[in-house]
Amino acid sequence: MSIIVHIGKPGSFSHAAARTQYGTDHTYIGCKSFEDVFRTVAEGNAEIGVVPIENSLAGSIYENYDMFDKYSVSIATEQYLKVEHYLLCKKSHATDTERMREMITVYSHPKALEQCRSFFNNHDWMKPTVAIDTATSAYQVASSDDMTVAAIGSLESAHLYRLHVLARNIEDDINNYTRFVYIIKKKADNPQANKCSLQFEVKHEPGSLVRVLQVLSAHKLNLTKIESRPIHGKPFEYQFYMDFEFDPKDREELDTVIDELRRNTHIVKILGMYKAGKLDI
Amino acid sequence: MSIIVHIGKPGSFSHAAARTQYGTDHTYIGCKSFEDVFRTVAEGNAEIGVVPIENSLAGSIYENYDMFDKYSVSIATEQYLKVEHYLLCKKSHATDTERMREMITVYSHPKALEQCRSFFNNHDWMKPTVAIDTATSAYQVASSDDMTVAAIGSLESAHLYRLHVLARNIEDDINNYTRFVYIIKKKADNPQANKCSLQFEVKHEPGSLVRVLQVLSAHKLNLTKIESRPIHGKPFEYQFYMDFEFDPKDREELDTVIDELRRNTHIVKILGMYKAGKLDI
Repeated sequence: MSIIVHIGKPGSFSHAAARTQYGTDHTYIGCKSFEDVFRTVAEGNAEIGVVPIENSLAGSIYENYDMFDKYSVSIATEQYLKVEHYLLCKKSHATDTERMREMITVYSHPKALEQCRSFFNNHDWMKPTVAIDTATSAYQVASSDDMTVAAIGSLESAHLYRLHVLARNIEDDINNYTRFVYIIKKKADNPQANKCSLQFEVKHEPGSLVRVLQVLSAHKLNLTKIESRPIHGKPFEYQFYMDFEFDPKDREELDTVIDELRRNTHIVKILGMYKAGKLDI
Repeated sequence: MSIIVHIGKPGSFSHAAARTQYGTDHTYIGCKSFEDVFRTVAEGNAEIGVVPIENSLAGSIYENYDMFDKYSVSIATEQYLKVEHYLLCKKSHATDTERMREMITVYSHPKALEQCRSFFNNHDWMKPTVAIDTATSAYQVASSDDMTVAAIGSLESAHLYRLHVLARNIEDDINNYTRFVYIIKKKADNPQANKCSLQFEVKHEPGSLVRVLQVLSAHKLNLTKIESRPIHGKPFEYQFYMDFEFDPKDREELDTVIDELRRNTHIVKILGMYKAGKLDI
C-alpha cells in the first residue's frame, strides 16, 4: 500500500486517474497545488504523485514541466485518460426526464462548463455556475438540500459523493484526453521501460536542432513528442521537451544515445524512462 | 475604424491586449467562445479577431490552433503580453491600508486565484472566490454595494469599471506572458513580415522531421517554435506547428522554402506571414 498524492479534493480528475491506474487499495491524499504534489514526493512524504502534463486541446502544461527543475523526482509511468463529463445530481424517486426538467443550477469548473456548451444550448433552462473545480462542485451538490442543483464532474466523483448520473458524456468534443505522469523520488528502473522523456537546451543557430534529431534517426528511435520553449532570461535560446520510444532490448544502446545528445546540446535532463501508456485516439 | 472581436466581457485579458495593440479608436465586440471569434472574422462580420495561442506557463492552446483548420483566416500580426494581476476594489475615502484590512471576498477566475497564491497566504483574511472570468469579477465588484468585495483583474478592467487599484502585480510568477495572434479573413500581405507560422504533417518514420528541419537550416532560417501533436484517428502520425523568422529582403526565396517543405511533408498549411512581436523575457 502506497501513499499517492494528487491535486484537488477526492473525485478530482487527477484522483480519478490515479485510482484507474493503481486501484483503490492505496491512501490517496489531495494537495492544494501541483507544486505541493511534487514537493510531497520529493520530500519522501508520499511514494507516488500524479500530475497532468499535457492535454489534447489545451497543450503541454509547462508549469508541471518546470517542477522537474525544482524537485528531484522522475517519471515512473504515464497514462492517457479521456476527459469525460457527467451531469450529477442527488438521488431521488423522480425519473431522469423529470429530474432533467427540474435542474436550475449546474456547478463546475469554468473549463468544464465551457466544454459542455452544446449541452447547455440544448438545455437552456439550466444555468452554468462556476465552482473552484469539478470535485468541489460534486461536493456542493451532495451537501446541499436543494434538489434543483447539479454538477458536472467525473464518474468517480459520482461514486464518492453518492450522486446520481443524470447524463453521460455531455462534453462537446469527444477527443479530449489528458496525459498524466506518475512521479517518484528515486530514479525509476523498470526493465519494461520503452519510452524516454527528456529536456535539453541548444544554441539558437541554424542546424542545432537538426543535429539532435539526427542522433535519434541514426539510432532508429521513434520521436513521439518534440516541443520548443523560449528560455526565460536567455533570448534566442530554447529549451526542448522530447519523448522517444525505444525497444527495451536496446536499453544499453541508450547510454550511447544520451552521450551523443550531450555532445550536441548544452544541458540534457532525463525526466524518466518508463513504459509507454496507451493512447486511444 | 475596424470591428475587433475578442473573447469575454469588456476588460477581459483579450480585450485589454487588443486595446494595447490597436488603441481605443475601434469597435470592440466580446464573443462567448474562441470559436465565435474565428467564425465572426471568417464570415466577414469583423475585420480583426484576437485569440491567445500560447502561454509561457500553460503552453500552446491547441483548441485555437484547431480553429485554423475549420475557418479560413490568417494571422496578420502577433503580440506578447505579460500577464499581470491587480487587486481591484470600489473607490472610497479610506486609505489603502484600511481597505486592505476590510476586504473579505476576492473574486476571480480560478486560474488567476491560483496564480496569486502567495498574496492570499500573506493576506489570509481574504477569501478567494471563483468567478467565470477576470472581467466578470471586476464587473461584480463594480455593481455591488458591498465594500468588502474585491476582484483580481487587469488594469484595463480597473479603468472600464472605475475601480481602484489596491495592489499591483500580485501574481506569484512574474514570468507569465501570453502570445496573442490577430486574425483576418484575407491573406495578410505585409511587406515588413519577417515571421511565418505553419502547420504540417509527416509520416512517423525515423528521419522525416530531420528532413524538414534541414530545409530551414539550409536556408539559414531561424526556427523559433516547433511542436508535435498526435493526429486524431491516425495513430503514429503527427502534426507539427512551426514558426520561423526570415529576413523581409529574402521574401521571394520563401516560395522555394515552402516548395521544399511540401516535398518533405504530407500537408503544409501556412497560418500566416507577419511581423514578429517583441518578446520581453
